[in-house]
Amino acid sequence: MSPITQAEGFGLESVARDGAARRGRLVTPHGVIDTPNFMAVATFGAVRGISATELAEAGAQILLSNTYHLHERPGEATVQTLGGLHGFTGWRGPWLTDSGGFQVTSLSDRARVDESGVTFTSPLDGQRRTLTPENTIGIQEALGSDIAMVLDECIPVTTSEDGEPDTSRMNRAMERTLRWAERAQRARQRASQAVFAIVQGGASETLRRASAKATAGLEFDGYAHGGLGLGETREQRRAAVATANAALPADRPRYLMGLGKPLDLLDGIAAGVDLFDCVVPTRNGRHGLLFTSQGSLSLRNARFAADSEPVDPACSCPACRDHSRGYLRHLIKTGESLGSRLASLHNLTYYFNLMRRARAAIEQGTFPDLHGEIEALAEVRL
Amino acid sequence: MSPITQAEGFGLESVARDGAARRGRLVTPHGVIDTPNFMAVATFGAVRGISATELAEAGAQILLSNTYHLHERPGEATVQTLGGLHGFTGWRGPWLTDSGGFQVTSLSDRARVDESGVTFTSPLDGQRRTLTPENTIGIQEALGSDIAMVLDECIPVTTSEDGEPDTSRMNRAMERTLRWAERAQRARQRASQAVFAIVQGGASETLRRASAKATAGLEFDGYAHGGLGLGETREQRRAAVATANAALPADRPRYLMGLGKPLDLLDGIAAGVDLFDCVVPTRNGRHGLLFTSQGSLSLRNARFAADSEPVDPACSCPACRDHSRGYLRHLIKTGESLGSRLASLHNLTYYFNLMRRARAAIEQGTFPDLHGEIEALAEVRL
Repeated sequence: MSPITQAEGFGLESVARDGAARRGRLVTPHGVIDTPNFMAVATFGAVRGISATELAEAGAQILLSNTYHLHERPGEATVQTLGGLHGFTGWRGPWLTDSGGFQVTSLSDRARVDESGVTFTSPLDGQRRTLTPENTIGIQEALGSDIAMVLDECIPVTTSEDGEPDTSRMNRAMERTLRWAERAQRARQRASQAVFAIVQGGASETLRRASAKATAGLEFDGYAHGGLGLGETREQRRAAVATANAALPADRPRYLMGLGKPLDLLDGIAAGVDLFDCVVPTRNGRHGLLFTSQGSLSLRNARFAADSEPVDPACSCPACRDHSRGYLRHLIKTGESLGSRLASLHNLTYYFNLMRRARAAIEQGTFPDLHGEIEALAEVRL
Repeated sequence: MSPITQAEGFGLESVARDGAARRGRLVTPHGVIDTPNFMAVATFGAVRGISATELAEAGAQILLSNTYHLHERPGEATVQTLGGLHGFTGWRGPWLTDSGGFQVTSLSDRARVDESGVTFTSPLDGQRRTLTPENTIGIQEALGSDIAMVLDECIPVTTSEDGEPDTSRMNRAMERTLRWAERAQRARQRASQAVFAIVQGGASETLRRASAKATAGLEFDGYAHGGLGLGETREQRRAAVATANAALPADRPRYLMGLGKPLDLLDGIAAGVDLFDCVVPTRNGRHGLLFTSQGSLSLRNARFAADSEPVDPACSCPACRDHSRGYLRHLIKTGESLGSRLASLHNLTYYFNLMRRARAAIEQGTFPDLHGEIEALAEVRL
């Protein structure tokens, strides 16, 4: 069987551009995603506390789930038996799964990376297990996601002993990621699942360019920027993404992994990114940190205790439609799970609306104005 | 000002009877409650993880909130500023609040009860505070509930040193509860709030009869059975409730506090009870213990891991409509809050449907059949 290099029923259509910012439509077997777009994180196959219906009403078009977590519990065989991610969870739209490598490396202090893959001790049963470029594809095929990610070696922006960037270490990780991508490409067996490869190279523009160029040569369905948000500056990140994007094919989707705050998303879109994911809206929501059209606010602040205003008068999410800041603050302060749920849903609504505004701005050629607005808002605390 | 003994806009209309079981309509300033009915517990002004909209869709007609908890956080003044319980929480239907006495006594091992009231150490600020018959009414008036409860002295079914029921201690608690009820009645200032007094007397039919008779003489808007579910047998409880009900006025609602499982509710209805509350459906739901039309089941049981059936094919709640037992089990096992939410909502839906069936059965004169069905189901584990 010849290797699969392009998934059936999958592809990016261009709608508009504004500078490097791209407005597109990403067609998948389970629906079309308007890009740029944001993927809410459903670690165990559920966005914490929020139903599929609520996500759809808030504007979600694609969810992300974590392969490592589902592999541990309930196991990909069970997910497959219960209809794959779509049937298992009830979210019938597109799914993206990560490779599990990043989770394993960051959750286990005993993970060991060598050429074969990532070997780790399961916190569940204490057994040693290895994620390889091949078996992570197999697990994701069983999970049934629309988009799978290759295993990559993800290292933080590292410095050598003299305080300079440790280019040789980053170079080795980049080279290995490339070899793993080739192995993943050869392991594919499911024609209806897209696979994205991952560009590495730390904060070095030279390495990012080289990584993107070589990865693009492997002809994946899409490409991701990995290893960012791990210590580099905003300018380094913007340059790394823009440089890599220039070396990636224009007709394939680009995904900036694990980032971030609203301004990070706008920076990414300005550099030509199409997809994002991050736990920030849900995690911040659980902590009472909310994004609004006027700036962000912490509901734990005592001055909201008797505030009868909604979190954001411009927002129509259930939290803002039905409740006051005072009530939401009370729920967060008392640890009532309805508070986490409503605050997370509000933040996700904010993110989906922001992506909607970004798409409209690109179509209208006003994206730089929106980018400037969000840059100014990033500093505002209500 | 003469004391308020009957709330405005409040009253019980009789619809039907079947033996001692009563089918009625309880009119309150914020809506009509079909009785018998079950009140979901919204400790801090929210049923754990569940929205007011979902509660209404599941069939809830009245919620219960805990005065002690709201008094501590956010304080009744804040609740009042934000529109009372109705405006504060977004549940616009009727609210019942407890007096706080039971919570204080059960949560604090340093609570001291004397004639003035219940003095306790706040776990929040370490200060000593006293709940009195008067100030619990004042707090509940500020909270704005439709039905307030008097402070009572609630003691478990006690035994003296020779193993016999400690009638003298129960008698003292009953007498004090009666004196406190009189004080509460004199303290009322809000004409649109009903107040229920509480019958005590442990498992002694003699004491229950005496308590009910004396309490009824104080002319409250309704009456509750307190101090049950604390160690007495099913037969003792049924006798205590039936005996007290015979001494209570037929035209006032009767509320069995803090109970219980489905069969406890049916037992209560058979003895002429109109209202119930309990944390069982929500707490059991969080633990993965679900009630179904075929018996109860524990989602933690491994045999549900790959079960694609809904929890209860006869149920139309969001959990049963959209999800499999396998997925819900996975959510409960991984501690995903969506699992607690869906399981709690399922159990509440079961309770509300059970109350609907009880009302219909009373109207049709078939309540004993339903009672027998639930008695048989109580033993069935799926």
